[in-house]
Amino acid sequence: MKYRDDKELFDTMEHRLYSSVVSDILDSLGYRNQAMRADINPVWAGAVVAGRAHTCLSVDIYELKENPYENEIAAVDTLKPNDVLVAGTNCSTETALWGELLSTAARARGARGAIVDGYTRDVVRIRDMKFPLFATGTRPLDSKGRSIVLEHGRPVKCGGVMVNEGDIILADIDGVVVVPHAIAQEVIEKSLEKASAEDTVRDELLGGALLGDVYRKYGVL
Amino acid sequence: MKYRDDKELFDTMEHRLYSSVVSDILDSLGYRNQAMRADINPVWAGAVVAGRAHTCLSVDIYELKENPYENEIAAVDTLKPNDVLVAGTNCSTETALWGELLSTAARARGARGAIVDGYTRDVVRIRDMKFPLFATGTRPLDSKGRSIVLEHGRPVKCGGVMVNEGDIILADIDGVVVVPHAIAQEVIEKSLEKASAEDTVRDELLGGALLGDVYRKYGVL
Amino acid sequence: MKYRDDKELFDTMEHRLYSSVVSDILDSLGYRNQAMRADINPVWAGAVVAGRAHTCLSVDIYELKENPYENEIAAVDTLKPNDVLVAGTNCSTETALWGELLSTAARARGARGAIVDGYTRDVVRIRDMKFPLFATGTRPLDSKGRSIVLEHGRPVKCGGVMVNEGDIILADIDGVVVVPHAIAQEVIEKSLEKASAEDTVRDELLGGALLGDVYRKYGVL
Amino acid sequence: MKYRDDKELFDTMEHRLYSSVVSDILDSLGYRNQAMRADINPVWAGAVVAGRAHTCLSVDIYELKENPYENEIAAVDTLKPNDVLVAGTNCSTETALWGELLSTAARARGARGAIVDGYTRDVVRIRDMKFPLFATGTRPLDSKGRSIVLEHGRPVKCGGVMVNEGDIILADIDGVVVVPHAIAQEVIEKSLEKASAEDTVRDELLGGALLGDVYRKYGVL
Amino acid sequence: MKYRDDKELFDTMEHRLYSSVVSDILDSLGYRNQAMRADINPVWAGAVVAGRAHTCLSVDIYELKENPYENEIAAVDTLKPNDVLVAGTNCSTETALWGELLSTAARARGARGAIVDGYTRDVVRIRDMKFPLFATGTRPLDSKGRSIVLEHGRPVKCGGVMVNEGDIILADIDGVVVVPHAIAQEVIEKSLEKASAEDTVRDELLGGALLGDVYRKYGVL
Amino acid sequence: MKYRDDKELFDTMEHRLYSSVVSDILDSLGYRNQAMRADINPVWAGAVVAGRAHTCLSVDIYELKENPYENEIAAVDTLKPNDVLVAGTNCSTETALWGELLSTAARARGARGAIVDGYTRDVVRIRDMKFPLFATGTRPLDSKGRSIVLEHGRPVKCGGVMVNEGDIILADIDGVVVVPHAIAQEVIEKSLEKASAEDTVRDELLGGALLGDVYRKYGVL
Repeated sequence: MKYRDDKELFDTMEHRLYSSVVSDILDSLGYRNQAMRADINPVWAGAVVAGRAHTCLSVDIYELKENPYENEIAAVDTLKPNDVLVAGTNCSTETALWGELLSTAARARGARGAIVDGYTRDVVRIRDMKFPLFATGTRPLDSKGRSIVLEHGRPVKCGGVMVNEGDIILADIDGVVVVPHAIAQEVIEKSLEKASAEDTVRDELLGGALLGDVYRKYGVL
Repeated sequence: MKYRDDKELFDTMEHRLYSSVVSDILDSLGYRNQAMRADINPVWAGAVVAGRAHTCLSVDIYELKENPYENEIAAVDTLKPNDVLVAGTNCSTETALWGELLSTAARARGARGAIVDGYTRDVVRIRDMKFPLFATGTRPLDSKGRSIVLEHGRPVKCGGVMVNEGDIILADIDGVVVVPHAIAQEVIEKSLEKASAEDTVRDELLGGALLGDVYRKYGVL
Repeated sequence: MKYRDDKELFDTMEHRLYSSVVSDILDSLGYRNQAMRADINPVWAGAVVAGRAHTCLSVDIYELKENPYENEIAAVDTLKPNDVLVAGTNCSTETALWGELLSTAARARGARGAIVDGYTRDVVRIRDMKFPLFATGTRPLDSKGRSIVLEHGRPVKCGGVMVNEGDIILADIDGVVVVPHAIAQEVIEKSLEKASAEDTVRDELLGGALLGDVYRKYGVL
Repeated sequence: MKYRDDKELFDTMEHRLYSSVVSDILDSLGYRNQAMRADINPVWAGAVVAGRAHTCLSVDIYELKENPYENEIAAVDTLKPNDVLVAGTNCSTETALWGELLSTAARARGARGAIVDGYTRDVVRIRDMKFPLFATGTRPLDSKGRSIVLEHGRPVKCGGVMVNEGDIILADIDGVVVVPHAIAQEVIEKSLEKASAEDTVRDELLGGALLGDVYRKYGVL
Repeated sequence: MKYRDDKELFDTMEHRLYSSVVSDILDSLGYRNQAMRADINPVWAGAVVAGRAHTCLSVDIYELKENPYENEIAAVDTLKPNDVLVAGTNCSTETALWGELLSTAARARGARGAIVDGYTRDVVRIRDMKFPLFATGTRPLDSKGRSIVLEHGRPVKCGGVMVNEGDIILADIDGVVVVPHAIAQEVIEKSLEKASAEDTVRDELLGGALLGDVYRKYGVL
Repeated sequence: MKYRDDKELFDTMEHRLYSSVVSDILDSLGYRNQAMRADINPVWAGAVVAGRAHTCLSVDIYELKENPYENEIAAVDTLKPNDVLVAGTNCSTETALWGELLSTAARARGARGAIVDGYTRDVVRIRDMKFPLFATGTRPLDSKGRSIVLEHGRPVKCGGVMVNEGDIILADIDGVVVVPHAIAQEVIEKSLEKASAEDTVRDELLGGALLGDVYRKYGVL
C-alpha cells in the first residue's frame, strides 16, 4: 500500500472511512458476511478504531482454575502495535472478559482498541482513557472462576463473523466490519473512492433532487 | 383543529407533549395497544418527532434483484411535508433499511423524521443533520440483495403496533405512540390538559407531600 | 462502621467505590451471584447510587383494578432516608412501572434512587432532576390496568439476584451489585482496600510493564 | 343452540371441529387474535379439549407464603362441569403451576381439561388418566414458594390471547383457539359448515386437480 | 449416477442414508453450513424425506390482499415429481404457511415432502396421509391477510441455510441437510461408504472395546 | 443405604421415584435450584434414568484441532458402571455433542444414560438401543472442528444447575433433578415416603373430595 506504515494506514481508515462504506465494498466483492451483529457497540460515545486483528477465544468454566489469568495475560502481552484485540466468548453472559487494567496493558503494547463479543466492566475509566472498546454490554463480574482464555491467534467467531489473525478491523457507531487480510488493499482503496462518490450524491439530495432521479444518475444509494 | 396548519400542530406536539401523556389519554379512550416495543429508540440523544405516518413495509430477500431500490425510492419520494416515515421490516436483523442518504432525501421532501422497526446505518451523519430517527439498532449492511420494500402507504406492523397511513406519530426518549387518525384531535387536546394537571401534582410532591395524599386529592399519578 | 451516619457511608460508597471492586470482594467471600443482569442500566449518563434496599414486587394483570395504585403508593411512601427502591416485575415488558412522579415522591421521602427490573417512562425529567434510576428500558405505558404492586419489603428477584429488605445496593455504569446486609461492613472495608491496590497496578501498567509481570508481582488483575 | 346441553356441544366440537377451521371462521368475522402462541402444546399425543374457560392468573413470588395454595385450591374447586381451566402465569419459567393432583381434582369437579401458559409436571400420570392438558413445557418444581395464584374468574392473557371467564376454548395438536362468548354460537355453526366444504376440496385435490383450479372453483384453501 | 431415475435415487437416500452421515461428508468437503437450525422438526414421528428442492419465500403482510393465495398456489402447482418444497418465511410466528390441502396438492404433483421454516396446521391429517413435513411448530392461523408468497424458484434462506432451486434435501429426525446440486453425486456416494464404515465401528464398540482404541484403529467416530 | 449395591439403588429410583417428588424433598431441605431448565428433554418417549454424575464440559471452537476427539474419548472411556454422563456445552447451538457411537461406548462402560445441555444426533438408533438420553435438541452436525471437550470430572453448569462429579441424577419426562452427593441418602428415603403419601391423596381426590378439604387433611398437594 501507499501508506508509510500501518499507523498511517489505520489513522486514515479511522478518519476518512466508516464501516458502512467498507461493508458496501465487501458486498460488491462477494464478501457478504463481514459485519458483526448489532449488539456489539462502542462502550463510549465517539469510539472509532481501525487495526489488525489479534484474535482470542474465551470460554465459560465453573470453578477457580490454577493460574486463572495465564492465557488472558498471554493474549494481551502478545499484542503488537496497531493491533485490535478481537475476543470471542461464545456469547457468554456470565462474566466481563474485559476491563480497565487490560485496556491499560493493551495500550502499553501499542494496541489501538478491542472488540469483545461479551461483556466489559470499568467503563468510566476506559472512556476516560479514550481506549476504543466495543462490547455487548457491561457486568461488574470478574472472569476469575467464570471463564478462561482458551487460545489466542487462532480463528474465532466474534459477533457472528469468522475472524482470522491479521484481518483488518474497522469499528464505529454503525458496527464492526472485518476485512479479510488477502483483500485488504483493494477494499480500502475502493472504499475511499466510494466515500467520495457519496459526497456528490448527498450534495444533489441536499439541493432538493428526488431520490429516484439521483439514483438513476449516479447508481449510488 | 385550532392550529394554523400541520406544521404548527406537530411543532406544538413536539414541544408541549410527550409520549407518556399521549399514551395515558389513548388508554383512557380504550386504545391500549398504541405504544411500540421498547427496542425502538432514538439513534441520537434528544431526538423528538411528531408527524403524519407514511407507512412502508420492507422484507428480507436472498439475492440481488433488478432495480433493488425501486420501491424504497418510491416510498421516500412520496413523502409529503410533515410526514414521518414508519417502516416495518418484520423484525429483520439482516440489513440496515435506513441511512444518511434516505434521511437527506426524506428531509428534502419535507418529512419530519422516521421510525424504523429495524436497523439503520450512518448514525453520525444522521445525528449531525438532526434528522429524528428511531430504530432498533445499527449494522453497516446495505439493503441491496438483502431486503426490498414491498409496498408503501398500506397498513404495517411497526414495533408491535398496527400503523395506518395518516395516523399521528409522537416519538421521544420514552417511546413511540401511534394515534389513530380518527381520534387525533380529541387525543391531542386531552393530552395538553393532562400535561397541565401533572404540573400541579409535581409541585405538591416537590413540596414534600405523601404520594398517597396527592393521589387522593388529584386522582393523577 | 466508622461513618457518622448512613448518609456519609453511602456518599463514600458512591464516590470512592465502584460496582466491579465490590463484586470482586463479594466473589472472594464466596458470594458469586450478587451482580444483576446486564440489561439493567442507568437511564441517564453518570447515574450512580448507593443505599439500603427497600424491595417491591410488581406483577402484570389484565384489567383495571379498584385502587390500582394502592400498593405502589404504599411502597413509595414507606421509603426511608437513604433507601434505594429495588423493584422486581418478573421481567414485564407490558408496562412502565416507574416514572417522574414516583421519582419525585421517592426523593421527597429521602430515597437515593431506584433499581427497576422493568421499564420506566419520563426519562427526560428524571434525568433533569438527577434521580439515579436503573431500568431495563422505556415504554410510555402507564401501569394502570397493566400491573399492580403485590407487596413491598419482602424478598424479590431483581435482575436475577435475590434482594432482601435492607441489603446494600451499589449501582453504576458497570452494573448493580447487591451486598447482603450481614456482610456489608466487611465488604465495604475490603472494597476500599482493593480500590487502592488497583491504583498501584494501574500505575505500573501505565509505565509500560507487561501484564504478566505486574500480575506476578501484585496478584491483582 | 340446538344441543341438548353443554356436554353434547363440547363433545361435538371435540369430534367434528378442529382449531384451524374455527380460527378461519373467527378471522372471517374480524376476530384475528384468538389463537394462542405456538409454544403451548398438548402434553400427551392426541389430547383434544373443548369447553368453557374458567380463568386463573398465577404470578411468581420469592418466598414461602402462608397458605401458599389457598387461591390455587379455590381456582380448582370453583371449576364447574364442562369448564376448561385457562391459566396465565406471565410466562413463568420458574415453576410448574400444574400437576397430577390438580388434574385429578379438576376432573372430579367435571372440568374437561386445562390450558396453562406455563409449565406442568407429572406428565406420565396426566397422560395415563387422559386429562387433556396443554402447557409450554415441563419442570419438576412445585409452585410452593415460587408462585401464587393471584385471582380466578378474571380476564387473563394466556398464550398471547386475552381470555374472559366463559369464553369457549378449542385445543388440539394445531393449537388453542379462544371463541369470545358473545359470538360462540355463530362461530360453531359456521365452523361446522366450513369443515364440510373442505371435504369436497380435499376430494378434488386427491383426484389430482391443480390447486389453482380447485381454488377458483370453490374459493376455499 | 447409477440410479435408474430420481425416484430410485431418493428412495435409496431415504432408506440407506441419514442426515448426520451426509453432514459429515459435506463437512469433509468444506461445506460446513448445510444443516438447518434445530427448531425445524418432523411434525409426525418417523417422517423422512429426500428430494430436489423447489424453493419458495413467504413474507408477513398486514392486510388482506387481492388474490391472496395466487403465488402460493403457483409455488405448489409448479412442483414436479420428486421435488421437496423448501419454504422460508423470514422466521414468521404470525401464521401457518402450510396445511393439509397444500400437502394434498403437493403430493398430487408428485412432491415427496416439504420443509417449512415456519408454522403449519392440520397436523393430524398430514400425519394420516404420511406426507413428510418438517416445520418449526403449529398454529391454526390461515395465511390469508397475514402473509403472501413473494416468489418461488429463487434462492431462499431456510433454517439458516441458503437453499437454491434444485439442491438435494435429506430430512429426518436429526435434522435437515442441504446438498448443493453441483456436488450431489460425490456427496451421496461418499455418504453410502461412510455409513458402511460406521457399521464396523459400532460392532467393535458393542463388543466392549474402548472408544479410544476403536478410534485409533478406524479413525471414525 | 439399605441397597445391596448401586445398581439396586438406581433401579429403585428409576422404578419407584420421579423427578417431581425428589424436587419437592430437595425444596423442603432448602435446595431449591436443583431442577434443570425445561428445554432438556428425553430424546425418545419413555426414557428414564438414575445414576451417578460423571461430568464433562464441551466448548465451541472454530477450527479443526489436532486430536479433536481426545478429551471426548477420555470423558467417555472413564465412565464407570452406574454413571450418567452430564455434559455442559455453554448452551451451544453449533454442533451435536452426542451421538450413537458415544452412546454405544458409554453403555459398554456400564453407564446408565446421558444428560446433554446441547444437541445430539442419531436419535433413531439411540432410541432403538434404549439408551436414556436427555438433550436440548438435534442437529446432524459432528463436533469435529466445532467443539472440543475441555475437561471431565470437574464442576459444570448443565441446564442451569451446578453439577459435581458423583452427584445423583434422576431424569424423566418431567425434567432432570440433581441431588448433591452429601444429602443423597436422606433425599431418596424421604422421596420414597412422600411418594406413598401422594397415593393416599390421589385416592381421596379420585373419590370426588374437594382439593381444599384434602389439603387441609393431609397437607400435601
